[in-house]
Amino acid sequence: MAGHFHRVIPEGEDRERLTCADCGFVNYENPKIVTGAVVVEHGRILLCRRAIPPRTGFWTLPAGFMELGETVAEGAAREAFEEAQARIAIEGVLAVYSIARIGQVQILFRAHLAEPGIAPGPESLETRFFAWDEIPWGDIAFPSVHWALRHWHATRDAPLGAPATNPPEDTRGMTPLPGATTSV
Amino acid sequence: MAGHFHRVIPEGEDRERLTCADCGFVNYENPKIVTGAVVVEHGRILLCRRAIPPRTGFWTLPAGFMELGETVAEGAAREAFEEAQARIAIEGVLAVYSIARIGQVQILFRAHLAEPGIAPGPESLETRFFAWDEIPWGDIAFPSVHWALRHWHATRDAPLGAPATNPPEDTRGMTPLPGATTSV
Repeated sequence: MAGHFHRVIPEGEDRERLTCADCGFVNYENPKIVTGAVVVEHGRILLCRRAIPPRTGFWTLPAGFMELGETVAEGAAREAFEEAQARIAIEGVLAVYSIARIGQVQILFRAHLAEPGIAPGPESLETRFFAWDEIPWGDIAFPSVHWALRHWHATRDAPLGAPATNPPEDTRGMTPLPGATTSV
Repeated sequence: MAGHFHRVIPEGEDRERLTCADCGFVNYENPKIVTGAVVVEHGRILLCRRAIPPRTGFWTLPAGFMELGETVAEGAAREAFEEAQARIAIEGVLAVYSIARIGQVQILFRAHLAEPGIAPGPESLETRFFAWDEIPWGDIAFPSVHWALRHWHATRDAPLGAPATNPPEDTRGMTPLPGATTSV
């Protein structure tokens, strides 16, 4: 952020905002949405091995920051294509996780592959479908990937119900990122 | 935004970003989350009459922009207190709407009043519980309030299922805000 921004409480508000000392512009900082999917083909789950930080080399679901001008579902489909060149069909919302520590809300869909074929995009080293008992649990990138996989598995044969939210052991998404030295 | 920001495609990206010409800082602009709730007491629904633009004087659900450092559910509870001085108990996610036209995702919960008593906060002219057949349909502030009320009503006696998403007639949230002359 340019040097003229500082944190003050604007008139009529109750908390500090990043405000330009010159023109009074208030740069509201709000949580960002990560949109993604558990994508299944023949009962196996698509994971991507990350080519970029954080957690380079670890496995994750295809997911990323939602952009302006798209719906949450369109964003999840875009990310699946960017990270795994996968064309997906979205079934519905599987989970809504709040990761308060890093100002993220993750909206994850249940989906299946709509057309055959996957391949690593520029942000992935490798893309693969895993059977449940092949999932590399020790090499998963983020806690919420564990949460989403477990919830997918527990509900996989039923119609979609109420989406999962953070598990009882971590109701606010405060688990430190494994190996992280700074907040992301 | 200060004058030195312009829109360019940063190296390695595929779309324009608001970038500082002096220092290269990229100000990512992403959709914002509105969090709120359908709050019920004795089968009646809490609505707030807006004291602020847009749609001053029209009725809406208690909802507002999610802040950093809170979960989605915490944000919905905070907004219910700020706008209606209501203490609420959240049951689960009722709806996830994408309003692509204005870069919003609305996450709305099913909730009930946890302690008796409501009163207008500074952003409300009036707060009231409405029976279903008393709802002032012609004076509702936003299309998504219609959507959420209809979905709440259709599912009110059942356990929470998959959250509603945008209705088939408006899959991307492109309905113009009634009476709006600019995007909000």
